[in-house]
Amino acid sequence: MASDGFRPLDEKSLLEYLKATPVLAEKLGNQFEDLQIKEVGDGNLNFVYIVVGRSGSFVIKQALPYIRCIGESWPMTKERAYFEARTLREHRRVCPDQTPEVYHFDRAMCVIGMRYIEPPHIILRKGLIAGKEYPLLAEHMSDFMAKTLFFSSLLYLTTTEHKHAVAEFCGNVELCRLTEQVVFSDPYKVSQYNHWTSPYLDSDAEAVRQDNILKLEVAELKSKFCERTQALIHGDLHTGSIMVTSKSTQVIDPEFSFYGPMGFDVGAFIGNLILAYFAQDGHANEGNDRKEYKLWILKTIEETWNLFHKKFTALWDEHKDGPGEAYLPEIYNNAELHLLAKQKYMEDLFHDSLGFGAAKMIRRIVGVAHVEDFESIAEPEKRANCERQALTFAKLLLKERRRFKSIGEVVSAIQQPKP
Amino acid sequence: MASDGFRPLDEKSLLEYLKATPVLAEKLGNQFEDLQIKEVGDGNLNFVYIVVGRSGSFVIKQALPYIRCIGESWPMTKERAYFEARTLREHRRVCPDQTPEVYHFDRAMCVIGMRYIEPPHIILRKGLIAGKEYPLLAEHMSDFMAKTLFFSSLLYLTTTEHKHAVAEFCGNVELCRLTEQVVFSDPYKVSQYNHWTSPYLDSDAEAVRQDNILKLEVAELKSKFCERTQALIHGDLHTGSIMVTSKSTQVIDPEFSFYGPMGFDVGAFIGNLILAYFAQDGHANEGNDRKEYKLWILKTIEETWNLFHKKFTALWDEHKDGPGEAYLPEIYNNAELHLLAKQKYMEDLFHDSLGFGAAKMIRRIVGVAHVEDFESIAEPEKRANCERQALTFAKLLLKERRRFKSIGEVVSAIQQPKP
Repeated sequence: MASDGFRPLDEKSLLEYLKATPVLAEKLGNQFEDLQIKEVGDGNLNFVYIVVGRSGSFVIKQALPYIRCIGESWPMTKERAYFEARTLREHRRVCPDQTPEVYHFDRAMCVIGMRYIEPPHIILRKGLIAGKEYPLLAEHMSDFMAKTLFFSSLLYLTTTEHKHAVAEFCGNVELCRLTEQVVFSDPYKVSQYNHWTSPYLDSDAEAVRQDNILKLEVAELKSKFCERTQALIHGDLHTGSIMVTSKSTQVIDPEFSFYGPMGFDVGAFIGNLILAYFAQDGHANEGNDRKEYKLWILKTIEETWNLFHKKFTALWDEHKDGPGEAYLPEIYNNAELHLLAKQKYMEDLFHDSLGFGAAKMIRRIVGVAHVEDFESIAEPEKRANCERQALTFAKLLLKERRRFKSIGEVVSAIQQPKP
Repeated sequence: MASDGFRPLDEKSLLEYLKATPVLAEKLGNQFEDLQIKEVGDGNLNFVYIVVGRSGSFVIKQALPYIRCIGESWPMTKERAYFEARTLREHRRVCPDQTPEVYHFDRAMCVIGMRYIEPPHIILRKGLIAGKEYPLLAEHMSDFMAKTLFFSSLLYLTTTEHKHAVAEFCGNVELCRLTEQVVFSDPYKVSQYNHWTSPYLDSDAEAVRQDNILKLEVAELKSKFCERTQALIHGDLHTGSIMVTSKSTQVIDPEFSFYGPMGFDVGAFIGNLILAYFAQDGHANEGNDRKEYKLWILKTIEETWNLFHKKFTALWDEHKDGPGEAYLPEIYNNAELHLLAKQKYMEDLFHDSLGFGAAKMIRRIVGVAHVEDFESIAEPEKRANCERQALTFAKLLLKERRRFKSIGEVVSAIQQPKP
């Protein structure tokens, strides 16, 4: 055991750990004979064990001091587990329906014990690849984003509470730096980690690195990411951080959380839906041309923003005489001004979301970490064609985001034939 | 003595304190017989003693746990002394010529021992009221602002260093809240602390409280103040925080310092020069119509911004391959893009500065703390006329700031007759 009390768990030591941890042992009815323990960490960063006993189940997630998918050559603070547990609990407080419960957190061991999000839940990204519709997805995700972002912003918090929380989450700087590198930097320069569907996209990747206007816009977004402490954001809200059934939506993995720009979360979700849209032609086959499914994705994108807008501003209305110090009631509570303030705030947030969403799309095509939506298209030329369409749209969206007045206009632009 | 080790000093206990503090006692050559000790705190917040001995001198500044000018009814953390000392030392490191040396800091007692900025230094505001020209003021202040802001921004720091510093200065939240209240809130609502030259400005104050567009712009500036961690700003850089002779410029009192928007400092200085400009007609007399002096103020405003722009971008050029992570050299080092990036950054900073400068002007006319520039105009109607001109210009500047392309255009607008 290291001097800081940390040791990586394996299946055997995990069992001992469970026996020695009352809150977890009790979940299992203190029955350890026929436990099922399965390592399922298919993510990039951590060990994840599913533990199922006769009287209960949970997931054990352990952060390691490096990035699992790259190995010990890319060290990464295991303190991220602290911020993940901290944010899960905060999300659970303000949005219990879309957040799994945390049963146990062990800071020294970087171990989180939390709800096992049982089958038929699957990762949303896998559902999108399979062409499955989730009728409540927009409803649930707009709810999650409206609540988690509103309640951690100065629309609801005092500046004392806000600065206190900002200071704490500054501690998650290493994870922020990883985002800075893989989202805002690497795709725009030559980097050993970048890859793309070669040779088809060689000139596209080169064009990204040569595009001054694109890079100027990316600098502005990066500055917002690094400097704007607007709300406690999830920080990695793509379709791989969401588990779904037709009735349930659960948001997991907020280890990148910190006080940043709200648009980074909204954009991550919408941008990844747009990626899923452009991947559909690669998944079409004789049995299913995916045309209807593509329309469902577009409808979900449109509903997500519109419902988010509605719910977020409804929270603002509801709490306009509350503790938040951004718009003091004595100054801003006249009907016309309150409306103007909301319009301005939401317009800025909309354009931020489009910008961040586009940046997250680009990095998934020419950066280090790709998405299964495209990677699962076996034929490289077909995959490259899908990716090129997504990349072309993302560049347009990033550069022209301020001219979009509604999500409907964005959805129309997605459907325009790409040159 | 309170349990935290704090006790307010008086002249007698100060003497004992000096004797017991080697670094200060040594400055005085350990000679205490004919010390001259004088309390000179004419500011709003603290006790300030000048201590002059035969072999040396210094200033002792002690923060009290309330706002001195209002009294114990307005408590204010004495921890501000820590941030003041911390920032003075940081400013001294990057801009020694315009920052007095700190000899001693005692956190428990909230005592700073620092250079006595000796006569003929006077507070700049008093010099501006007296009609004195300071030929090096623009040179020195542009130097101070360029260095202190650049070196604490992500143009020079890594995001690790930046987030670490941001977290620390979140601790100065109480002082930030005081600014939020007196600059961004009170002037725009009915507040017991507000006052103005009544009855002359009654309808002007009312108009400020009823101006929806103005209040919408103020909300945007307040959001930047609360959420944008762009650089370590002084936080109170008006003409009362600067001591001058014709050859020397010394910036003091950074107790409001924290990571905020750069434009708040640049705007504070320029906005207070504009206030000084509009006060001149109130100081004109038969012997001196102040016309030439007003032109000198305008020239100083123009030179301050233009020199700041030149020096700040020169620092950026010099350090573009340095540690700063906002614009990585591998992405942004092509001549055209580097130029575009600087233009965009400086244009945003210019508009921020105009906005914050205007907000700081408005609060000095209809808010709690006024400026001697106007207060020293004895005849109320004359004073009100000067203040109304300043207020009219400030409102225009705040609302229309984005249409100004250069400081020359701002200076022209200052000279336009006011309706």
